[in-house]
Amino acid sequence: MNLYTVVSLVVNRPGVLAHISSLFNRRAFNIESIAAGLSEDPGITRITMVVSGDERDLDQVIRQLDKLIDIISVVDVSTRSTVDRELAMIKVNAGPEARAEIMQMTEVFRARIVDFSEDSLIVEMTGDSEKVEALIGLLSKFGILEMSRTGKIAMMRGRATIKAEQS
Amino acid sequence: MNLYTVVSLVVNRPGVLAHISSLFNRRAFNIESIAAGLSEDPGITRITMVVSGDERDLDQVIRQLDKLIDIISVVDVSTRSTVDRELAMIKVNAGPEARAEIMQMTEVFRARIVDFSEDSLIVEMTGDSEKVEALIGLLSKFGILEMSRTGKIAMMRGRATIKAEQS
Repeated sequence: MNLYTVVSLVVNRPGVLAHISSLFNRRAFNIESIAAGLSEDPGITRITMVVSGDERDLDQVIRQLDKLIDIISVVDVSTRSTVDRELAMIKVNAGPEARAEIMQMTEVFRARIVDFSEDSLIVEMTGDSEKVEALIGLLSKFGILEMSRTGKIAMMRGRATIKAEQS
Repeated sequence: MNLYTVVSLVVNRPGVLAHISSLFNRRAFNIESIAAGLSEDPGITRITMVVSGDERDLDQVIRQLDKLIDIISVVDVSTRSTVDRELAMIKVNAGPEARAEIMQMTEVFRARIVDFSEDSLIVEMTGDSEKVEALIGLLSKFGILEMSRTGKIAMMRGRATIKAEQS
């Protein structure tokens, strides 16, 4: 089982997301993460999915997706030169005695403290998955109360765009 | 039509996402954005959805979601005190003459340049939707080649967690 990153541009109509996820499910793919938000075009949603499964099956799913009328473009960017980022918010157990150390960690990782209470902090962090996981590893000794990750988004370097791709 | 932010904790099994999105579709909700990634518990995915629709229908969808065996928790956090964030990557048309101005904008917005070519830049930005949209508005005069947004994630302030909620 390998991990793949698939970026799609879709018309924002009810049912599109359910349709895409059920196509992956039928081919026994697991969806590890999904991030869907506005693209550069009004009415067009950009969906980034990280899926695990078999490479040959992936080609078939992509060909099936490409036939759907609401899908404008679908590209497996796994082997492309991309900038990969995700956003995480991590709520950490943090009394006064732990704060200084947590703040040192966040500084080194260029993370930010976005909520502060008597006994907890929320750390916001942006980076590739490896960097995000490294910070989570360090913070875990304080006790992670809650964590929210957006899932990865990916963009090809330079002027290349998903829209211009023939998948 | 109002916008609502719904956070769910779900068991990461094939079909869960398709099931959730089709429940929203059946009640004529539009899914504006969705961000699904790992939570603090291994095997549990945290899904943040921004949906537009009718408030009475939302209560019904949440009650139906709550009955699904793979859904651990589902909370409408729209009226709660939360930290809201999303991540955007924006690829901008940028020859040498435009770079200085774009770099000034990114500095003020605490955004980052994450890719640099002869005639384009990728700007990475984290913030609430309003701040992200303000930067997009400023950058649009240079020509936005491509944009990827994760969709919003939301976390309650202080020690409160979604897991502890009775929805």
